[in-house]
Parts: sequence; structure tokens; C-alpha cells
Amino acid sequence: MKDLIAQLERIVGQDQVLKEPEDLIPYGFDGTAVLKEPAMCVVFPADVNEVAAVVGVAASHGTPIVTRGSGTGLSGGSVPVRNGVVVCLLRLNRILEIDARNLTISAQCGVITKDIADEAAKAGLFYPPDPGSMKISTIGGNVAENSGGLRGLKYGVTRNYVMGLEAVLPSGEVCWFGNKCVKDVAGYSMKDLFIGSEGTLGIITRVLLRLLPKPASRRTLLASFSSMEAAAATVSAIIEARVIPCTLEFLDRVTVRCVEDYAGIGLPLEAEAILLMETDGHPAVVAEEAKQMTVIARENGATDVKVAADEQEGERLATARRAAFSALARMKPTTILEDATVPRSELTKMVRKIQEVGERYNLTIGTFGHMGDGNLHPTILTDEKDADEMDRVEKAMHEMFEYAIELGGTITGEHGVGLAKKPFLPRQFTESSYALMKSLKRTLDPDGLLNPGKIFD
Amino acid sequence: MKDLIAQLERIVGQDQVLKEPEDLIPYGFDGTAVLKEPAMCVVFPADVNEVAAVVGVAASHGTPIVTRGSGTGLSGGSVPVRNGVVVCLLRLNRILEIDARNLTISAQCGVITKDIADEAAKAGLFYPPDPGSMKISTIGGNVAENSGGLRGLKYGVTRNYVMGLEAVLPSGEVCWFGNKCVKDVAGYSMKDLFIGSEGTLGIITRVLLRLLPKPASRRTLLASFSSMEAAAATVSAIIEARVIPCTLEFLDRVTVRCVEDYAGIGLPLEAEAILLMETDGHPAVVAEEAKQMTVIARENGATDVKVAADEQEGERLATARRAAFSALARMKPTTILEDATVPRSELTKMVRKIQEVGERYNLTIGTFGHMGDGNLHPTILTDEKDADEMDRVEKAMHEMFEYAIELGGTITGEHGVGLAKKPFLPRQFTESSYALMKSLKRTLDPDGLLNPGKIFD
Repeated sequence: MKDLIAQLERIVGQDQVLKEPEDLIPYGFDGTAVLKEPAMCVVFPADVNEVAAVVGVAASHGTPIVTRGSGTGLSGGSVPVRNGVVVCLLRLNRILEIDARNLTISAQCGVITKDIADEAAKAGLFYPPDPGSMKISTIGGNVAENSGGLRGLKYGVTRNYVMGLEAVLPSGEVCWFGNKCVKDVAGYSMKDLFIGSEGTLGIITRVLLRLLPKPASRRTLLASFSSMEAAAATVSAIIEARVIPCTLEFLDRVTVRCVEDYAGIGLPLEAEAILLMETDGHPAVVAEEAKQMTVIARENGATDVKVAADEQEGERLATARRAAFSALARMKPTTILEDATVPRSELTKMVRKIQEVGERYNLTIGTFGHMGDGNLHPTILTDEKDADEMDRVEKAMHEMFEYAIELGGTITGEHGVGLAKKPFLPRQFTESSYALMKSLKRTLDPDGLLNPGKIFD
Repeated sequence: MKDLIAQLERIVGQDQVLKEPEDLIPYGFDGTAVLKEPAMCVVFPADVNEVAAVVGVAASHGTPIVTRGSGTGLSGGSVPVRNGVVVCLLRLNRILEIDARNLTISAQCGVITKDIADEAAKAGLFYPPDPGSMKISTIGGNVAENSGGLRGLKYGVTRNYVMGLEAVLPSGEVCWFGNKCVKDVAGYSMKDLFIGSEGTLGIITRVLLRLLPKPASRRTLLASFSSMEAAAATVSAIIEARVIPCTLEFLDRVTVRCVEDYAGIGLPLEAEAILLMETDGHPAVVAEEAKQMTVIARENGATDVKVAADEQEGERLATARRAAFSALARMKPTTILEDATVPRSELTKMVRKIQEVGERYNLTIGTFGHMGDGNLHPTILTDEKDADEMDRVEKAMHEMFEYAIELGGTITGEHGVGLAKKPFLPRQFTESSYALMKSLKRTLDPDGLLNPGKIFD
């Protein structure tokens, strides 16, 4: 072990390796509740060559590697492996190029996602994926997890914006896949294999992202409902009316109260559920869609529909929504955030199930999420020290996952499998599909060096 | 061999196996020039179970399998392997479900792509990918090749619309990957590995596709130019002005004359190049974008810009454009269609190179293509019996591919690698990236049964 650390120090410099127990603590967990594990050491390489060298050295010792960005993951994907090396990529933080002619941006993996969006905006361009964590999470982490966000309904997820990526393989080789071409069918789509692979196949060190022209205008609406079903029905009706707004976010009563307490922006505390609806694009389209959504919400039982006075107010509402997790997390010692996702047509059933399960197991659940994507985040407010309650939490989660799969859904819409959802993954796949995924892992990482024990054993 | 055929006949029925040399001829080639190879037999399974059984029997004999839809491929991907079985999937031709609530359509692989689009349109929905062959090509073939089309600029390619697929593995196992969820990050994105894998990893038997609301209106414009560079500059200027029309198609003088001769719809014969531009969406947006494109085309040297009187006239122009390949193919015995693709910013350079190479090697090249995607189709009109000219064709193609790669492009934007571009593939990848692709092939198809010799050896 000492030998390995000395070798790592020679690669990245002594001041770029953490090895004291107290220094390792903040790198022993990510944004996921309960999961913790200390690493042997944390290294901070400066560039891709150092990453490759670190991988080579760790491999020669047979030591596992866990890659980490800002550690905001919500499925334990970057929780260390005991006696493993954590490779933290925050120093690879340069935006390399913005290409306005080809509508692309190129960046190192450690760039904060919001910086990508801001840099694009400066050039009149738009990077749509906006995970809740975008102010702190890294673009490399977003790509490794295939992060979603609030605009998935209209704009898709991170995968839809990755045109190319550089990855360090477990062998220490550096590969690049992709280019600035809008169309490219030469060979297998290797980049798609790495996107969402949660650090188990390679270490993503650089990305090339597609940008869009910035929408000319946007409008935000806030609708209040006296039942969760009415909000869900509104979402279905909007999509059936062939309106595809950029955002259809949902917050239940528990979440609204927590967020209001946290952010104080005047959310309607008496509502059982609220919908935050945003439309963007050409001003004429925005005006029409805002009108349509208002009418549809009212027809489906909205007690009130407010239009944000301007973009600033709209932005404040979206920021409040992004704070939902943090706001809920303040209420109890342990916050377990799930993201079972169902086809949009099954939303009402799923919402009812979450309520029913919460009541039956006597749990406090705040639910919010990307209703337009069928992507709900039931958030269980609990205390990991309360063994009896944790047992009920476990059972409730299990029921929710089972039901989501039964409805044709998935155990994870945007948070990844990691450690947290690993036991449920085989339920979603047939035996041969599951075996096929594992065989890919063995092909790319025969010695199981990269993020072992994540996604599957 | 007799034994194998008897077993196959027991699975699919005697009348669903072709084995006489004269019956095999039409299945010995696809849409690609020059490439021909007779199969041992052609089988027509009725459903996925028969496909799986056929694979199992062929595998037990160690006999290679080539999958085929309508045989419209342009890289030799479905050209038989000598003494191999051709599995033709045209009998799996049922549309299974259109789900207007989730905006999806589910179909067997042998459904004709245009039937998918028409069925969606009946429900007020829209399936955007529109490869030139869409009136005859199958959706399974489109997915296996990740087909592009005329609307790539705004709407992307086939990959962007595949939410799920069923594949028969070389082992005969049937796997399903995907669901109706807009977001799903459970496990590796296996479907993305099969999309564009050209029949080398599995046989795609069923697909679940994403649909969009049908755009409310569309408008088609036809701009004439006195030089190819002016047309290319117009395309760049449109995108730099942040306008993303659904179609920016280009035809050079040679192609315009052939198409006019073939379709007689009044194309401007005196132009050196024409651009077919289409915008769709909300009427206000369409009107504005049409105006912007007209102004930009004029500023960049358009000698004339015509607006189609109505959607019917627009459709006639698009149909004429889709006929470009057929129209050119009538001129000479052999038509070699390429689809080297470059980043949009490099279009002018690529266009010049094609002209220069054509002149230097004294070849007749008609160029058309999806200029908005940087995806050009230089089409060499030649005669495979003229050995000297074929030698020059070979050299010219080589130079074009090399230049496309040098410009950061790809050897194939939408036609696939198949047999035709196999020799050029290693040029586009580093050694380790190329090796990694081959290792995936070995993992999924260890005995090399599926479409052997396609993409790579």
C-alpha cells in the first residue's frame, strides 16, 4: 500500500494525494443516504496523462479505482471501495472550446455543468440538460450517470447532447469516440456505451457536447391543485393535447412546505400539489402554449394558475424547485430520495401507489419530480438510527420499485444504479439481457478494477 | 448443407425457403454497386420464435447468417456470405401498437418505414427519420443501420427515436431492451449498442419508437445558385443565424439535370447548385424562418429563391430530392454513392475537394445530400466493366475519405460501413478504439456467426 501511494505521489505530486483518515472522510460518501466507505487514498490528477498513469499504477497493484467528480451522485456510484483509490477529477476543469459554427462545446470532465450552460449562453447558445445538482456537479459525472433534469420532456437527457468523449480504459489506454458530425455511423456507437456506465467501464476525461440556439423567450406558470391526481391528470392532458413544454415539474404538499420554509418565495401552502410549467421558444408559441396549459390545468381541477411576471420570477420558481431535495433534507437526519419512473400514461397510478405505501408503512414521504417525464422522486424523510423505521423504508421502497416495473417503468430514471439500486436491477431485465450487460463489463474491465460492485456484483 | 436446409424448412415451412440458384439471385446483392455474393438459401421466418429457431439451427451447423430487410442498404451490409443463410424479415410486418398517450409506436422489424410514418400521421403524430429509401426500406433495417434522412439537422437520426428493441442473439436467446419511459438509466444502454450494429451483434425483430406531435405547418423553399460554394456558404450562414430548419438539401448541376429529366417538376436547369430548404412548426415560426432563409440565401449569392405554393408542391420537391439517387443511377451502368460527412463548418472545403478530385480523375460526379448535416453524397457515375475508370474511382474515393477524416469528419454519415467502407474504418479510429469495437463483437458473437466480414474482418 505504501508503495502504491508513493508511486501515485510521483505521478500527481505529493500535495495531490490525500491519505490521512480525517482527510478521507469527505470523500467517503456522495449524495446518497446511509452509504459510506473509506478509501485508501484520494488522488487529484491534473490531466488525462496523469489519469492514465494513475490507472496503470493502480492496475499493476490490482487496486480498484473509483472515479469521483463533485460527489453529488444519488445512487452511491462514487462511494469508495475499501482499500481502493479514489480518482477525483476536479482539476480537469477547463472549457476547451466553444464552436459557434458547429454548435458544440468541448470541456474537460471536471467542469461544473452550470459553467457549461453559462459559457454556452454567452455565445447565444443553450445546453439544455439541467440536473438539480448542476451548480456543483461536474459534466463528467453527468455523462457517466446520463443525468436528466427538469427539461427532459422537450429536450431529452445528457446522452442526447454528447457528440464525443475521451475515456481512459482500465488498461491505461486513452480512447476518443465521436466527432463534430451531426451524422456518423462508422462502427458501433462506443460513446453510448460509456454514457451512463457509472465509472465501471472507463474514466471519462473529456467531452464534446452539442448545443442548441437559445430559445427566444420563455414563460413560467404555477398551478395549484387540491389533489395529486388532478396534477397528474393535467400533465397527461397537456401531452395528449400535443403540447410539449420544456418543464412540467411537480411538488406535493410536504415538499411545497419544506421548500417555502427554505426559500420563502411565496408558494401556495394550502395546495395538495403544485405544477411548475415552463414553455420556451418563439414568443408566439410560448404565448399560445402558456394559454393552452392554463386552460387545461383549470379543466383538470387547478384551483389557481399564476403566470410568472417575468423571466426572473420564472427563474426564482425553477431555483426553488431545484432546492426541493436540499429543503427536504433539512427535515430529518436521513433523506432517501428515489427516482422510479413510469410511462407518462401511468403517472396517476404511480402517484396513488406512493401515497398508499407511505400511509401503510407510516412514513413521511415528500414527492416531487419531473412529471412530464413520468420521473417522480418520492423522498422518504427518516432516521437511519431508527432500525424499525428503516425496515419499513426498505419494504416501502421495494414495493414502489416493483410497482414501477409492473407499470412498464424503470427502477431509476436519472440517478443511476450504483450501490443503492443494484439489488433491484435483475428484476428489470431478463436473465439473458442481464448476463449480456455483465459480459460487456468483463470485456472492457476483465480484472474488475473500475468501480467494482457498482451496477452489479 | 441438405440437412441444414431440411431443418430450416421444418421451422419456417418448405414454401418459405428459397434454395434454387435462380431464386437466390435477387437476394445476392443490395443497393450497393458492384458487391454480389450468392447465399446458400434464403429463409422467411414468420415471427421472432422462428427467427430464434433459425439462428439456433444455423449456429449448430456453424453456418453464418446475414439478415436482410428490403435490401436497400448502400454499404453492402446485407450482401450474403457465400454458403451462408440469408434471413429475410419481410414477413414480420405488423404494426403492433400506437400509443398516443405516451407518444410511441411499436412495430415488427419488417414494417416499411413509410408505413410507420403514415400510421403516426393518422394519429396526428410524427415519425421524423426519413431516409431516401423510406418507401421500401424496413424499420428494422433502418435501426440496424441507424439511418439518417433529410430531416437530421433539426430532428436527428433513427437512433434518437428508438426507445426499445428486441434482438435475437447468436445464441438464439431473445432479449428486450428499453421501455416507454422518457428517462431510464438502469444498466448500460444496450439498445444503443444494437442500433447501427449492421446485423453483426444480433437480429433486431421488434422496435419501440418515440413519436412527436405533428408540426402544425411547413414551408418549402427552393434557392438557385451559380456556384456550389455559394450554396454551402448559405447553409453555414443559416445555422450561424441560429435558424435550424428541418431540411437543407443540396443538389449540384449534374444531379438537378438528372432529377429533372426523371421527374420533370421544373427544377432550374441553369443553376450550378440548388438548395431545398424546409421549415416546419408553428405557423408564425415557419413564416419568420422562411423569410430569414430567403434573405440569407440572397445575401450569399442565390440567383433566385422560390417559395412552394403549398404543402403539395413542397412535397413534390422533397420527393424529387428523394429520387436523386434513382435519377442518377439511370445515367450509367454503375452508380457509386458515397456519404463522407464533415462538421458543417467544413462544408465549403469538402465541396471544393469533391469537385477538384472529380476533375483530376476525369470522373462524372453528381453530388447531392444533406448539407445542413455536413452529409454529402458524391455519386460517381461509372461502369464497373471499365477497369481503368474503376481504378480512378477507387483512388478518388480514397482521397475523399482521407480528406473527410482530416477535416474531423467520418467515412459514413448514414449508410454504414458494411463491406464497402470496411477498409477505411481503421483510419478513423485509434488502434485501441478499433480493437475495443472488435472485442465487443467477439463478446456478443464469439463464433462470428452474424454477418461475418461486415464492418471489420
